[in-house]
Amino acid sequence: MPEPVKAYAELEKRFARIAKLRGAVGMLHWDQSVVMPRGGAEARAEQISTLRVLAHELLVAPEMAELLDEAQRGSEAPDGWQTANLREMARRHAHATAVPGDLVEALSRAITRCETIWRDARPASDFAMLLPSFREVLSLTREMAAAKADRLGLGLYDALLDEYDPGRRAEKIDRIFGELAAFLPALIQEAVERQSARSAPVPPEGHFPRSVQHALAERLMRTLGFDFERGRLDVSLHPFSGGVPDDSRITTRWDEAGFATGLMGVLHETGHALYEQGLPPAWRYQPVGEDRGMTLHESQSLIVEMQVCRSRAFISYLAPLLREAFGRSGPEWEPGNLYRLATRVRPGFIRVDADEVTYPAHVMLRYRLERAMVAGDLDPADLPGAWNEGFEALLGIRPPDDRRGCLQDIHWPDGAWGYFPTYTLGAITAAQLFEAAQRAEPDLQDAIGRGDFGPLVNWLRREIHGCGCLYEGDELIRRATGRPLDVATFRRHLEARYLDAG
Amino acid sequence: MPEPVKAYAELEKRFARIAKLRGAVGMLHWDQSVVMPRGGAEARAEQISTLRVLAHELLVAPEMAELLDEAQRGSEAPDGWQTANLREMARRHAHATAVPGDLVEALSRAITRCETIWRDARPASDFAMLLPSFREVLSLTREMAAAKADRLGLGLYDALLDEYDPGRRAEKIDRIFGELAAFLPALIQEAVERQSARSAPVPPEGHFPRSVQHALAERLMRTLGFDFERGRLDVSLHPFSGGVPDDSRITTRWDEAGFATGLMGVLHETGHALYEQGLPPAWRYQPVGEDRGMTLHESQSLIVEMQVCRSRAFISYLAPLLREAFGRSGPEWEPGNLYRLATRVRPGFIRVDADEVTYPAHVMLRYRLERAMVAGDLDPADLPGAWNEGFEALLGIRPPDDRRGCLQDIHWPDGAWGYFPTYTLGAITAAQLFEAAQRAEPDLQDAIGRGDFGPLVNWLRREIHGCGCLYEGDELIRRATGRPLDVATFRRHLEARYLDAG
Repeated sequence: MPEPVKAYAELEKRFARIAKLRGAVGMLHWDQSVVMPRGGAEARAEQISTLRVLAHELLVAPEMAELLDEAQRGSEAPDGWQTANLREMARRHAHATAVPGDLVEALSRAITRCETIWRDARPASDFAMLLPSFREVLSLTREMAAAKADRLGLGLYDALLDEYDPGRRAEKIDRIFGELAAFLPALIQEAVERQSARSAPVPPEGHFPRSVQHALAERLMRTLGFDFERGRLDVSLHPFSGGVPDDSRITTRWDEAGFATGLMGVLHETGHALYEQGLPPAWRYQPVGEDRGMTLHESQSLIVEMQVCRSRAFISYLAPLLREAFGRSGPEWEPGNLYRLATRVRPGFIRVDADEVTYPAHVMLRYRLERAMVAGDLDPADLPGAWNEGFEALLGIRPPDDRRGCLQDIHWPDGAWGYFPTYTLGAITAAQLFEAAQRAEPDLQDAIGRGDFGPLVNWLRREIHGCGCLYEGDELIRRATGRPLDVATFRRHLEARYLDAG
Repeated sequence: MPEPVKAYAELEKRFARIAKLRGAVGMLHWDQSVVMPRGGAEARAEQISTLRVLAHELLVAPEMAELLDEAQRGSEAPDGWQTANLREMARRHAHATAVPGDLVEALSRAITRCETIWRDARPASDFAMLLPSFREVLSLTREMAAAKADRLGLGLYDALLDEYDPGRRAEKIDRIFGELAAFLPALIQEAVERQSARSAPVPPEGHFPRSVQHALAERLMRTLGFDFERGRLDVSLHPFSGGVPDDSRITTRWDEAGFATGLMGVLHETGHALYEQGLPPAWRYQPVGEDRGMTLHESQSLIVEMQVCRSRAFISYLAPLLREAFGRSGPEWEPGNLYRLATRVRPGFIRVDADEVTYPAHVMLRYRLERAMVAGDLDPADLPGAWNEGFEALLGIRPPDDRRGCLQDIHWPDGAWGYFPTYTLGAITAAQLFEAAQRAEPDLQDAIGRGDFGPLVNWLRREIHGCGCLYEGDELIRRATGRPLDVATFRRHLEARYLDAG
């Protein structure tokens, strides 16, 4: 065997080991969130951190750099997916080795501290309490960004972004968010005006037993293509999607006073899980076999939740199922009313409660602020003021306190800088993919109205899920939709849904 | 820091890492048995084997031997628990390094093959089908025993035994089982005769809903001292006790046509879990902080199930709880009848269904046969005949087929040679410990009748659970009971329960 081929084979072995360790972490995390008794917390933290440290040690082991060099020198080019695999291996290795170990440790300690303080500062709406530890996280994050920027040849912010959405650059986000900013505030205003000109939709009221909600959710998941032989639905305080491709665990939270939030949450997580379950089995445990970053992942949850499940076609299909499940009927259970509820636009302070139209405004604000802080142009002490001002400019209302302002999210205290834009990039990607799927499968909308998601899911399996990391993110979108990511389809989608009559 | 102290500190770090990996395996195994969807099996096997291999690699790493040598050369003797810890570290290292890696791998593959064939051979009652792979497992097990015997300076069988019950030697088992064999067959016969001279006890019949059984089981677990902040009760096909000390997971299986098996199963596993939850927190993640082997572990399940929960005192306490839980009453729900049911002696072919009196006969037979096979004195081809003959001699009935004979247990196909005797050694230990606890806590029996297990559990916490591996097994028993393990108390216990009038 020539040396480069041998080196590559050794790399596959090592990366498989890392993937299996990470898979084990995923399962332990599910257990912690869903079934673990309180007393198990410390032991669990020790188990998870041991596995993480071992995975990290495997990735930064001294031989890794040599193996990667050797494999990349391969005179006989390995076939396509192996080249892509090698590219992804090198990317992970670069991220992991760019940052000195003591900085990783210092940042991890600062995050734990800041997150702990945030849990008290948020309900107390006390940003001053958070400020010192917030400064520390930011300062170490900037150090990390500088180390990565240096190694990857990127700008500071791009170096952070690259971890969540590999290959994504701020310059493109600026362009996209710039276009969004040009039309979104007016669109929000017009949508709100149109909706308030009509009588308000009526939320179904009553008692909606958990068990009925759960059964209905499982039925819809199955219809959407979720494979219960390779996954579960459970309950946890903070809903998430986790596990591994052949054992995808999603969670939700049931509210017996209203079914909409829990149900839409499940449909959102189902989109994530369909992506995981659809990843290419032939490349299991290899970087090329994994998801193509957070923007693509979010696009899969939003294509299900926003493009499909808040559409008129889906809600016509859903309405009789709801009536049957809860044994209720009346005007508030008619598709027209339910559709208007599912597409209600109301500017509010809290991102996680935001509707489809105002959500991007929440994200754009965070993106602008975190870029400025990473660049050193905004001092954290000035964050509350900058937040409230920016918020008012975008959404026309001013947060009355920091609890409903810059303290609401865990992301910054948690060290997830560069993550926020992927929410809205995901929404934009979802619109563009859904449009392409409809072009490719002309019957798609009618099929959805009949509760047949086969045409859509098969298209996603082929164009997105089954590709893993074979292509870079932008190339994947270009191949699937015929053009690079832009905001045009998303705009058309919002206008059609929120400004057209009806 | 002097070198030996430094070496010891490094060993603590490495063994903690190994313990956390093994803890993670415990949780993944729980998940696999309780909640995992079928499709997750392959990924789970990969995760678990990756963690096991990593733990093994850490244990046999080349520096380990040097660190152990260095630490053991310590001129300043480390304090007591550290000396014990070092002893246990060395023991594990010796077991792990005694066997060459390719033998471990060959044995592991042979076990997988043999176990798979066994799953078909058992229902088909076809020992010939199993024989070739059985021979292979035995032959590789003997090779492993030879390697360990050589390294540990032990006999072949002792080398196997030492893994399950460290420090235990066959010579002592021979003596104990010899004494047992001298009185047990007559005792069984007499117990059966006495019981058949009276009218048979009447099993409560009806439908016993799972949810009611589960709630009652949790209530009894709590009363016994199980800490639900640090553990759970769930359902699995094969009941087990697992997890980690601060997150002890036990499982059971409910039969809605009868509550006795499920309930007694839970009480048995609760004994195991109390041991785990009572291990010394100060020594977490260190070998000295773990349980003192399978004999001691089984003694803790049997002290709860057999010594306590099948006693007259406990059943008087239990009877009204049963009547209340199931909303039933009548003569079959009276303590006298329930006690006679819980102590019914009936020779049968299947070990796992055996009662307290006949169980040791099942074990003694297996012990004799596996010793002979390991010694090379019994060819596996002759096992069915030897089994049936030995069984008839001990229990007076002859298995009609191998399904109810030598094919019934997974242990041999599964490579667990040297494990069987710990069941009965555990029962004997339980009797001796329970007697000592009663001597130390004169109110103990009355307390049990009142549903107060504090005196017993506190004594066990102090004398057994909290000691971890500070002492060798025999020394632990001697300290707790005032003398080495012998069969006298167990005999008195059986005679009192099964031969006394009443």
